[in-house]
Amino acid sequence: MGVNRSTIMDLTRELAAAGLLEHQHAAAGSGAGRPSLVVRPRPERAYVLAFDIGTDRLAAARVGLGGQLLDRREADTPTRAAGRDMCDVLAELGQQMQQSATPGSACVGAGAALGAEPTTILTDLRHLLGRPVAVGRRAQLAAVAERERGAGAGFRDVVYLQGGDRVDGGIVVDGAILGRRDGQTPAIGHMLVDPQHGLPCSCGSLGCLDTKLGRYALLAGAGRDPEAGHRDAVRAMVRDAAAGDHTAARALAIAGDWLGIAVANLITLIRPQVVILDGTLRHLYAGAAERVHARIAHHTTPDTRWPTHLRPGILGQDAGLLGAAELGFAAFLDDPLHITAASASYPGPPHQ
Amino acid sequence: MGVNRSTIMDLTRELAAAGLLEHQHAAAGSGAGRPSLVVRPRPERAYVLAFDIGTDRLAAARVGLGGQLLDRREADTPTRAAGRDMCDVLAELGQQMQQSATPGSACVGAGAALGAEPTTILTDLRHLLGRPVAVGRRAQLAAVAERERGAGAGFRDVVYLQGGDRVDGGIVVDGAILGRRDGQTPAIGHMLVDPQHGLPCSCGSLGCLDTKLGRYALLAGAGRDPEAGHRDAVRAMVRDAAAGDHTAARALAIAGDWLGIAVANLITLIRPQVVILDGTLRHLYAGAAERVHARIAHHTTPDTRWPTHLRPGILGQDAGLLGAAELGFAAFLDDPLHITAASASYPGPPHQ
Repeated sequence: MGVNRSTIMDLTRELAAAGLLEHQHAAAGSGAGRPSLVVRPRPERAYVLAFDIGTDRLAAARVGLGGQLLDRREADTPTRAAGRDMCDVLAELGQQMQQSATPGSACVGAGAALGAEPTTILTDLRHLLGRPVAVGRRAQLAAVAERERGAGAGFRDVVYLQGGDRVDGGIVVDGAILGRRDGQTPAIGHMLVDPQHGLPCSCGSLGCLDTKLGRYALLAGAGRDPEAGHRDAVRAMVRDAAAGDHTAARALAIAGDWLGIAVANLITLIRPQVVILDGTLRHLYAGAAERVHARIAHHTTPDTRWPTHLRPGILGQDAGLLGAAELGFAAFLDDPLHITAASASYPGPPHQ
Repeated sequence: MGVNRSTIMDLTRELAAAGLLEHQHAAAGSGAGRPSLVVRPRPERAYVLAFDIGTDRLAAARVGLGGQLLDRREADTPTRAAGRDMCDVLAELGQQMQQSATPGSACVGAGAALGAEPTTILTDLRHLLGRPVAVGRRAQLAAVAERERGAGAGFRDVVYLQGGDRVDGGIVVDGAILGRRDGQTPAIGHMLVDPQHGLPCSCGSLGCLDTKLGRYALLAGAGRDPEAGHRDAVRAMVRDAAAGDHTAARALAIAGDWLGIAVANLITLIRPQVVILDGTLRHLYAGAAERVHARIAHHTTPDTRWPTHLRPGILGQDAGLLGAAELGFAAFLDDPLHITAASASYPGPPHQ
């Protein structure tokens, strides 16, 4: 490696201090002289704390190198009325998991997945955990996790789309998540699919993908209560459509068209090897795959269309948590993923 | 560098053989012993041949490291009736430029910019020049050149849009042009901006950006002859609109809206630091900047909008040629840009 002895000593001392290496005396060989000291990696000893901070559910995990889920805990997100602070709950979960960790193992970092909204909770959490907490948007982190160890494993160019209250996602290009070093990241849910005729979006624009495939659009389009829990309600809509409910079937067909248009556009612009559909879009795709494929065929050419696979996500609810763990490890391994909450990095007023 | 003496000797021998290094005896120092042999780089000695193969114009250049245009020649693209082969003309231009190169300088590679269409000319050109010719799509290569030494210099995340007969472009993410290793590259001109209400596109889809801002759409929209030379005709339309021609002004406003929608969508999905507008879109932007900005403001949020600058391209007609030169150097420097003509890399029928 062209590295001299004292540099190696420094590096191994650092890794040993982090619990990642152990020193052993080599078995006596045939040579004369003092037996060499050898170092052996101990990947099972390093873990990160990962958090997924949802509006109704808090999840925390202790995750080993390679994405191994060593411990996982959940709690309801405390309401203002409950008199408990969200941050205290998270810190408590983190401390419990650290206490139950294998003696001698080392926490080497922490990461957290958030929705798109800005929050000051991270500053508090940093303070309570006594270490930096790397932050990313849930869908971006889920994209990283699905690409590393999920439906995108083995591919370098992946688009990940996640449906829920809102539509969000992440884009991986040549193995790296797309996003500027100053924290600006793609907002796939606000891709323009119907800018001249579409409905207003919560972001202030018109005809964003979110106005077609967000929870409200999907459920209201099928004549259902848009305030219902989105995952189950969308699953029920898909089930009912299959059972002959015409209103549900029609809404599903329209939603399938828009999903196909969105995927076609992403294929055209990004050329991923895989497009992963997750959350409510996973159910929508399961119920309207033919319609989605027909739309993609309509809006792409054969030579660009076929090298892209469509796949449902496979990590489920833990995708964001596993992505947050990746982020924690990335910071430790000095290999930043460049994911930060967009709101945290707003560079200020225009200087154009 | 942790590289041993014999490796250095091998490397310098190779670079010296290519004419990029020269050996010199160091000035006698204060130390005793034999004076060291030092090597000095000779960047002025390395050049590439670059070609831009247009439907009506062939351009060729000898380009030095750093994008220095050392020689530049042009010829009409021979028609079938002219009885001359396009490839012979290109090879002749290349040979003329090599003959007039500084004695002792070395040709280290060749690159060519093409339109989107497949072609077999490159095989012939390779044969005539006796060396590999790296190939890329013109707009992709122009994107690389504008990013390296044009309107995007100093930025890592750049979207480049080029208007002409068709709309095309390139996307640079964290300094690298976006495109798969198997040759699949973005087709920005076929971004869907009006998929439900738009006109059919030559690609078979509906409502692509090309159907709004391609030559035909721009000129026919202004009641002008779409067969006219696109650059001058679009410039004339912008000039006439400013002079009070209502038809031209109205067409310009509509085109400005679509350009704003396209740029807003690219900001949302890619988050570039700069969007560069070139070719006919450069003129369109000059004539409809307010309209373009208003549309971008309408379809993005302030925190995502402002960190992106809009700029006209500054390399002009030579952008593709300079990008082809980058491609030639990239192959030589063993730093592939992963740009190949999409048609050359079609991986075959679907295996999903």
